[in-house]
Amino acid sequence: MTVRSARIPVASRGDGDTLDLTGDLARELAACGLADGVAVLFIGGSTAGLTTIEFEPGAVGDLGRLFEEIAPRDRDYRHHQAWGDDNGHSHVRAALLGPSLSVPFTKGRLGLGTWQQVILVDFDTRPRRREVQVQFLGE
Amino acid sequence: MTVRSARIPVASRGDGDTLDLTGDLARELAACGLADGVAVLFIGGSTAGLTTIEFEPGAVGDLGRLFEEIAPRDRDYRHHQAWGDDNGHSHVRAALLGPSLSVPFTKGRLGLGTWQQVILVDFDTRPRRREVQVQFLGE
Amino acid sequence: MTVRSARIPVASRGDGDTLDLTGDLARELAACGLADGVAVLFIGGSTAGLTTIEFEPGAVGDLGRLFEEIAPRDRDYRHHQAWGDDNGHSHVRAALLGPSLSVPFTKGRLGLGTWQQVILVDFDTRPRRREVQVQFLGE
Repeated sequence: MTVRSARIPVASRGDGDTLDLTGDLARELAACGLADGVAVLFIGGSTAGLTTIEFEPGAVGDLGRLFEEIAPRDRDYRHHQAWGDDNGHSHVRAALLGPSLSVPFTKGRLGLGTWQQVILVDFDTRPRRREVQVQFLGE
Repeated sequence: MTVRSARIPVASRGDGDTLDLTGDLARELAACGLADGVAVLFIGGSTAGLTTIEFEPGAVGDLGRLFEEIAPRDRDYRHHQAWGDDNGHSHVRAALLGPSLSVPFTKGRLGLGTWQQVILVDFDTRPRRREVQVQFLGE
Repeated sequence: MTVRSARIPVASRGDGDTLDLTGDLARELAACGLADGVAVLFIGGSTAGLTTIEFEPGAVGDLGRLFEEIAPRDRDYRHHQAWGDDNGHSHVRAALLGPSLSVPFTKGRLGLGTWQQVILVDFDTRPRRREVQVQFLGE
């Protein structure tokens, strides 16, 4: 077994912008040459998260509504008092969703379902350029 | 280190049906022969998720209530407009819970607590046959 | 590649007490001597979870409010009927947040953002001594 590192650059509009990383991840897997193992994805930063979803505008919009309902943007957050920030909701949403995701691969193919894509949800209140870190652990 | 792959078949009734995978996972770990490492579990498909819980009907029912409250079944979802599906709540619940889970093992034993079981929650609206993918990374 | 195991002891006050594990994790990474790979963290037990956040009292308090709102402490839980416990909310919060977290490292450094810390949230209703298990997979 060995480890191969990759980075997937993402440019988001913020405000819950949701990006499909599946194609980039598959390309990086092919480039790294490993056949069997796990791709561990991680977003450095505390206002975005990773998960999977059927990537179509309806389901993505539904997920956005869920987050708005459980952690509304327009209310007071104690985090705002700390720094004068306006992204308290971004922080709690990201903490709940989580920054890491692991996807298995066998024979060079990701173990995703047919209607399942890897997504980054950027909860921050402004456009951001980020990089998703990927460690391929396998052989 | 090496990687050993396994699959755990699950047959669920859908509608939040929650299945205890711990016994199957322990059996697969014993069968793969590795002593120290990590079991990475993943569910392919976008209407189910993985986590751990004390697997008794009360706690499982409480978790079901939480999901029903934050993402009720009987309301409009934009995902329904896309495909005529009725499982918009299944998609957002699964995305929030997440499709992957990592469990360490040492000396051939999973690092679970005494009252902690690995579960799959199937949020879909109909019975499903699925397979949980497991990659054992270890030595 | 190889695996190195570590344990981070934590003493929490319970009731959502949130502990920053970043310093301990960085120390264990340095001690294990690996340069590139993934740190897989896991909390054995079903009333605590792991994630990342900007660890300052405001954001941590905001996250606590979110959990109190979606899974309030003072209500009935079916889990209470099972054992006479009072921590039904702890179980569902922990199941939702999840017990595992994976953090990449390269050249001996964790891939965390500048304002992003690894945290354990202890949802139980009493002070607890626990150990977070860490498996460093790398080379």
